[in-house]
Amino acid sequence: MGEFELLESIRKRLPSPGSRVKLGSGDDAAIVVPEGATATSVDALIDGVHFRREWSGLRQIGHKALAVALSDLAAMGAEPGEAYVVLGVPPDLDEAGCLELLDGMAALAADTGTTLAGGDVTRAPVLTLALTVVGHAAEAAAFVTRGGARPGDALVVTGELGGAAAGLLLLESEAGAAPFEARSRLSPHSDEKLDRERLVVARQLEPSPRLGEGRALAGLGATAMIDLSDGLGGDARHVAAASGVRLLIESEALPLASGVAEAAEAAGRDPLELAASGGEDYELLAALPAERLADAVARLDADGAKLTAIGEVAAGEGVEIRLPGGRTLSPRGFDQLG
Amino acid sequence: MGEFELLESIRKRLPSPGSRVKLGSGDDAAIVVPEGATATSVDALIDGVHFRREWSGLRQIGHKALAVALSDLAAMGAEPGEAYVVLGVPPDLDEAGCLELLDGMAALAADTGTTLAGGDVTRAPVLTLALTVVGHAAEAAAFVTRGGARPGDALVVTGELGGAAAGLLLLESEAGAAPFEARSRLSPHSDEKLDRERLVVARQLEPSPRLGEGRALAGLGATAMIDLSDGLGGDARHVAAASGVRLLIESEALPLASGVAEAAEAAGRDPLELAASGGEDYELLAALPAERLADAVARLDADGAKLTAIGEVAAGEGVEIRLPGGRTLSPRGFDQLG
Repeated sequence: MGEFELLESIRKRLPSPGSRVKLGSGDDAAIVVPEGATATSVDALIDGVHFRREWSGLRQIGHKALAVALSDLAAMGAEPGEAYVVLGVPPDLDEAGCLELLDGMAALAADTGTTLAGGDVTRAPVLTLALTVVGHAAEAAAFVTRGGARPGDALVVTGELGGAAAGLLLLESEAGAAPFEARSRLSPHSDEKLDRERLVVARQLEPSPRLGEGRALAGLGATAMIDLSDGLGGDARHVAAASGVRLLIESEALPLASGVAEAAEAAGRDPLELAASGGEDYELLAALPAERLADAVARLDADGAKLTAIGEVAAGEGVEIRLPGGRTLSPRGFDQLG
Repeated sequence: MGEFELLESIRKRLPSPGSRVKLGSGDDAAIVVPEGATATSVDALIDGVHFRREWSGLRQIGHKALAVALSDLAAMGAEPGEAYVVLGVPPDLDEAGCLELLDGMAALAADTGTTLAGGDVTRAPVLTLALTVVGHAAEAAAFVTRGGARPGDALVVTGELGGAAAGLLLLESEAGAAPFEARSRLSPHSDEKLDRERLVVARQLEPSPRLGEGRALAGLGATAMIDLSDGLGGDARHVAAASGVRLLIESEALPLASGVAEAAEAAGRDPLELAASGGEDYELLAALPAERLADAVARLDADGAKLTAIGEVAAGEGVEIRLPGGRTLSPRGFDQLG
């Protein structure tokens, strides 16, 4: 099957385009009429670097590639609009495999109101994905950057932390043996430990972009926002540097994902370390005026989402993570994991 | 050097952003305020598939990756706006190499008024580039698609054809031996044959996106347009299919690039075949109302650009290439080269 035929098969599987999209996939370029301002982000995922085909189903890989890209739009408080997909196909991936991968992507696109508006399919030595996503807002000032945090702001984080890192530990502990999914399938009966493990592995393999939370926080006056891809410590440093402030984080306040304590214990690791430095949770870290904190927690709770205050913004620079017992840590000490 | 440091070095080398770009590289997403409608296209270039590092300098690779992407915007008649770059760095490419590649890209960006507004740098098994480009127009209807050609329209092509295919023949004829560039450097004195060869090799390695020509043709009422990446025959088929018409092309009218006749002869190939089916010339094929043809030729000539009438649009479907002596050929017969 040639590139044209594969592209045609893919086009037939796409959800119908959003109203801004005047011409979708199939011409030299997609035509879009934005309403105000756009936020555009690009992410590449390469087999062996960002995922492993032996750990992930093809649907999961397609899902994760788009999820990771959309997570950047969530961190801007943007409404997701269009996605453009580069698919580099290795010799051992056939047409059915490409379509399975695209199905995972298309399902998340449909769930989030994203139009897969174009792309390019090519041969590649290993499975290679590059996603460009475009989000929208009425005006440029409606987007939340990393650079607006002010001393006195509260620091909040959505959802729960450490799950993706715990899932990775679990997957790595099985390296060379039957992949987790296979073992998981062999034990279909209810098993509390296995259920917990499935949960953290799903956090690693099928992250959810926090688009609703990001738009809500933007609407609530968030002054700075970032998605947690590299890990809380490292990503907090980006906010501190861009805003010219110091971020103080109480490690005991961090919302641990369920299953993290057990996975950390099994690996001889500190669960707080996983929460503070494990990457790929794709939750949002935001600063917002302290007087909006209670409103924000209530508003996200009403939407079925979780928001936790984890510290505050101070004058100065850098990031300080306060550990139990009054010890403190600069997040550079956590960097080795990511 | 880590990803952050490389990204910082790259950011310092970028030309200053265009006026639409409110926030460039370095946050979760770039913020742009489009004026009306956008045209967005994505192209991937992978070592061993789209280029060979032994044939191309790193600056040339960076140039070509952006040129190929911008060529799609030229084919829409768009004004180039922003480019987003995924750079997959193989183990044998160091920081200096990455910056050399980016310099080639940045030089073309500056020449064309394109802002390198964001991107992602990652490890990869081989040098991998994915470029997303966004072009602008006052309204969606100002873009030229592949789908508007009407019976009676004239068919025109910009520039000259066959050069990139001739350059490829020349490079391939030296496979395993010293690359063309090295041999070329060994003969710095004037040599008519070598100069001609340098020209066609440059057509292959350093294509120019026909952005000015594309905007001019859009302004002159072009009804359909496509850039010649796969070869005239194949790309003409896309226009015929999208427009629901038949394209008649006179092969003797095709403007042969200089050096094509000689390279074809040396390889035992028909120069018209190279012009009609050799890909990667990145010229524009357009249909436009027959009564605008003389104006269009004069207008592009005044801009120092070349426009050649090569045939016409008829009712029906498919593409017919009329050969010397009254023979005809469906372009499927040319497909083997590309």
